This record gives sequence, structure tokens and C-alpha cells, in this order.
Amino acid sequence: MPLIDMVKFDEKGLVTAIAQDAATREVLMVAYMNRDTLEETLRTGSMVYWSRSRKKRWRKGETSGHVQALREVRIDCDGDALLFSIDQTGAACHEGYRSCFFRKSDGGSWRTAAEKVVR
Amino acid sequence: MPLIDMVKFDEKGLVTAIAQDAATREVLMVAYMNRDTLEETLRTGSMVYWSRSRKKRWRKGETSGHVQALREVRIDCDGDALLFSIDQTGAACHEGYRSCFFRKSDGGSWRTAAEKVVR
Repeated sequence: MPLIDMVKFDEKGLVTAIAQDAATREVLMVAYMNRDTLEETLRTGSMVYWSRSRKKRWRKGETSGHVQALREVRIDCDGDALLFSIDQTGAACHEGYRSCFFRKSDGGSWRTAAEKVVR
Repeated sequence: MPLIDMVKFDEKGLVTAIAQDAATREVLMVAYMNRDTLEETLRTGSMVYWSRSRKKRWRKGETSGHVQALREVRIDCDGDALLFSIDQTGAACHEGYRSCFFRKSDGGSWRTAAEKVVR
């Protein structure tokens, strides 16, 4: 089955996209893609998302330089989530952390559990 | 900040929940939680989701025995996704694979890239 045909876009035309570090397997971020940005990602090998808040295409790193090079893509059993194995330059998180998941649960509240890699 | 207060539930009252194998860091599945199932997960230490299709609470493994024991939870920078580090018994995927992401892109189509662990 052609790649795109198995993807189930939701009522807003979006699919969940998880970016995972190819080397360390750290989950770096979760974002969304529409058909166009998924096709552009697959064609160019550089991660391109759809920003739900700004309602626009967004090539990761186009302003920060923190690009994500695609290594491998997987799809889940029901076709509504994609898992991208990537090489991350710099920080995935706009707050300067390697991963957007830099806070962890600790005794009933959230604690920052990573060092910034970009300031 | 109390755990639940930082979580941004969407217009349907749901938050994205990623389950990652605590030992191997393999991403096992993506599902959703509402406030009640998130609270139940945190209280019991066993992953409980909200099924969007069946519109009901769903404790992972309650029929299959393939439970997920919570080890750690992280939240992303904008609060709309949670990353759970878990110990998986058996298969996360209802199709019998360890991970729901058992298909990977290969030359323009999807190829099954894992062996079933449960039949």
C-alpha cells in the first residue's frame, strides 16, 4: 500500500507525529502533520510539521537551525500516528532543551529533569 | 504546580499519551486520556486510557492481561502530551506485536518489521 494511503488523517486533516532520536531513542517532541507536510517530509528527508496554533506549515529548524533529518518512519496499527526516527541538530524544544519532555513527575508536581543544550 | 493542573486537555477533554518501554525505550503505542483516566493511572500505577472510538474508559490489559505498569511520567513544554515510561507485559498492540509501530516505510510502501510476541 502506498505510504500516504494508509495514513488516517483526522477530521482536521491531521496525523500525530512523534519524533524520536535515532541514536538514543529519546522521545523529543510530538506535533502534527497534514498531507502536504507529510509528503514534503518524505520527499525532502527533513521534518516539516503543521502548526495548529499558527495554522501554517513549519519546517523544523527553519529559523533556529535546529533541523531534524529523517532516518526512518513507522506507522501504528490503526494508521493515525507516525513515529519518525530522526537526527536532531541542537534542541528539539523551543525552550532550549534537547527534548520537549524535560519535566517529569516527582512527588505530586513537575520537576525539570534536563539541562538546556541551547541558551 | 500540581500534576493535573499543568495538563492541557483539548476541546474533547483529551490529552495525547505515549507509552514507551522503560527498558528498551521502544515507543509502544499512542492513545488518549481524559482527566479521570489520567488520575486513575497516576493513582493506581497501571495505565488507563480513554477510547475515542468506544467512548469509554479502558484499562490496558484488563481483558488481554497485557497490562502496563507505570514507571515515570513526563509532560511536554506546552502541556498537551504526556510520555509514560512503562513496563509492558506481553504485547502493547492488539495485533500481537510488542509495539503498535510494527510497520516501517520501505521503498514507498509499508513493511512489517517485527515478529508477533503473542498469537
